[in-house]
Amino acid sequence: MTFNAVDVIRVKRDGGVLSDAQIDWIMDGYTRGAVADEQMSALAMAILLRGMTPPEIARWTHAMIASGERLDLSSVDRSTVDKHSTGGVGDKITLPLTPLVAACGAAVPQLSGRGLGHTGGTLDKLEAIPGFRATLTNDEFLAQLRGVGAAICAAGSGLAPADRKLYALRDVTATVEAIPLIASSIMSKKIAEGTGALVLDVKVGSGAFMKHVDQARELARTMVELGGAHGVRTVALLTGMSTPLGLAVGNAVEVAEAVEVLSGGGPADVVELTVALAREMLDLAGLPDADPAAALRDGRAMDSWRALIRAQGGDPDAPLPVAPETEVVRAAADGYVSTVDAHRIGTSAWLLGAGRARKEDSVSASAGVVLHRRPGDEVRAGDPLYELRAEKADRIAPAREAAEGAVEIRSTPPAPVPLVMERIG
Amino acid sequence: MTFNAVDVIRVKRDGGVLSDAQIDWIMDGYTRGAVADEQMSALAMAILLRGMTPPEIARWTHAMIASGERLDLSSVDRSTVDKHSTGGVGDKITLPLTPLVAACGAAVPQLSGRGLGHTGGTLDKLEAIPGFRATLTNDEFLAQLRGVGAAICAAGSGLAPADRKLYALRDVTATVEAIPLIASSIMSKKIAEGTGALVLDVKVGSGAFMKHVDQARELARTMVELGGAHGVRTVALLTGMSTPLGLAVGNAVEVAEAVEVLSGGGPADVVELTVALAREMLDLAGLPDADPAAALRDGRAMDSWRALIRAQGGDPDAPLPVAPETEVVRAAADGYVSTVDAHRIGTSAWLLGAGRARKEDSVSASAGVVLHRRPGDEVRAGDPLYELRAEKADRIAPAREAAEGAVEIRSTPPAPVPLVMERIG
Repeated sequence: MTFNAVDVIRVKRDGGVLSDAQIDWIMDGYTRGAVADEQMSALAMAILLRGMTPPEIARWTHAMIASGERLDLSSVDRSTVDKHSTGGVGDKITLPLTPLVAACGAAVPQLSGRGLGHTGGTLDKLEAIPGFRATLTNDEFLAQLRGVGAAICAAGSGLAPADRKLYALRDVTATVEAIPLIASSIMSKKIAEGTGALVLDVKVGSGAFMKHVDQARELARTMVELGGAHGVRTVALLTGMSTPLGLAVGNAVEVAEAVEVLSGGGPADVVELTVALAREMLDLAGLPDADPAAALRDGRAMDSWRALIRAQGGDPDAPLPVAPETEVVRAAADGYVSTVDAHRIGTSAWLLGAGRARKEDSVSASAGVVLHRRPGDEVRAGDPLYELRAEKADRIAPAREAAEGAVEIRSTPPAPVPLVMERIG
Repeated sequence: MTFNAVDVIRVKRDGGVLSDAQIDWIMDGYTRGAVADEQMSALAMAILLRGMTPPEIARWTHAMIASGERLDLSSVDRSTVDKHSTGGVGDKITLPLTPLVAACGAAVPQLSGRGLGHTGGTLDKLEAIPGFRATLTNDEFLAQLRGVGAAICAAGSGLAPADRKLYALRDVTATVEAIPLIASSIMSKKIAEGTGALVLDVKVGSGAFMKHVDQARELARTMVELGGAHGVRTVALLTGMSTPLGLAVGNAVEVAEAVEVLSGGGPADVVELTVALAREMLDLAGLPDADPAAALRDGRAMDSWRALIRAQGGDPDAPLPVAPETEVVRAAADGYVSTVDAHRIGTSAWLLGAGRARKEDSVSASAGVVLHRRPGDEVRAGDPLYELRAEKADRIAPAREAAEGAVEIRSTPPAPVPLVMERIG
């Protein structure tokens, strides 16, 4: 079936529903270059403003998967289960979670991106480890899943190439913030990667893409439905992202914190979320009796981490890079920390060099923000609140300014806020 | 002032109002290529769906004018006044009107386009005349305005280059149909051309871009305001376009009909609209006592036409090209012609070769449809209704099919419909 791109755009522009054949045609044409970027961006804006029905989103996702290959993980003995987070400040959960779930008996085929965030993506964080290699061939990936039970690497260009192209386009045309496009982008990659099950960590709050719980719920439901429609058992947790996760926000500093968690320690919130997500993943993998908390305590998760890092060329014992420039920000008054604003801390870490402004930028491994206090902690005037770290001294002043007001101190302790807000699945 | 294209698009996407500085910045960036096509098309779609306030439309128009030169017609002694039509089937009015108004004492700086219509644009029609040259330099244009009092030629690339680029983009991204973008596109070119006054013929009906009178009224009001804001006295007439204008739809056939009108004859509706528009133009030019109907009857308009055609290299006495392939469609029953559908006749003419599908296509000078009956005419079964004309025989069958049902015959005559529906100014 052949169409005219203008006619297809017009349908959505006028609030209509795209047919399966129209969606297949435009996605194929866009992947091949027959539909131009300016046509796809006009369509993306129309989708953002007009919305899509669930069947349209399902077909759009299907068409993005069909634009490339779908990995076959049937040669892996164990049940496969993956996790995806919509991204937050200090979100290093993939680092302890992936080896933990592998240690408990499932296989975790974690294909990850770099992204444009406050800090680097998971791969940028791992690349702070000397020798770590983020790029594997499909054969290396499969062999590592069979051997170690987990791999964390860059998605190859063969998976959902339409999504890759469309994501870059949305980024420069103010069409990122459309739930149908976000959901289909995430799910097309995860479905193409071949995982049998998937747990979604949908972040809500000032440091997250979704500021409000109702948006986050709609996104989560859309993705859970898409997973089910494509035979991938999918569950979502809505989790709070108004405060950074843990104490470390950056690349090497987050790896160090992940290692603490794998050693049986680490900040309580990081441990709580890691175990909660592991629990969901293991349930979906048919391993309801596995005990992830025990695997963190008894060293099995750490063994799995070391095996994973070594398999990808990294040295788990090598010292991590340390930033030469640091500045400590101290409390101006006595009291209790009531909030630590994730958005401001994230922006500050980004200005220190931990994240990128453009896709082609590199990130600083050692830059970031390290918190000394969390919400609920008591402080006295002069106590350190957080520390700014950078490779170059001129990064400090703008980062200090961006973080200003991020930590609020009050005379009474704040009410505790649950980290896991809802479960959808 | 410098901005980020994504931030500017986001403002409009979210229903906000663009600042003057944002509009100036994006238009300049787009003209220079710093703002990409895919960014402008996303913005155009957001404008189409979110609208623009009158001050935004005024600034957008201003920015498009500022992207190029604005002609200075101060060396022309006479008052300058131009006309623009939003386009309809059989709309050859510019051909008799321009020399008529010049014959009555005003100067008409008619810069015209080719367009993608059912038939060619005014320039394509004139190019059916052997030798006619549609491209003039600015100096030739000015000299002709001073000498003959009128010129009809292609707008140079120096006038509103941003509009030229944006129009081509809108054409392939389903963003043509936005009143702010239509109004600013038309008015930026007409204001840049330097005319002192302007009469707009805004068409309404099945053969026009605006199918409903309320849309047409909104477009007319927007353009009249834009003209006023830029010091160009502007008036609009809303005129019916459910029936083709006159009997000829094509290129050479429309020139022939225009010559009939200039000879004091021609179809009543073409004469009526030509005189009504001339009346408005002459009033705006400060010539309220001029008598355009008399100038058609007494040969002054014809003298002016011949001078204009000669000045641009054409031979007003040369025979016009004639199509070798013709087919006459006849009435199936006795009665009165109740409607002649402009859209179907226009599509039929287009299929015969009179218009273009793509900008780079050429048009056939001799192809078109010639009506033998108009609404209200009595017919008997077997009488000719219209004639299809083409250069190649294989054009006839699809054109016949497209025109099917265009002429409706009933047992009683239809109520007369006024041609000029409203005046706005």
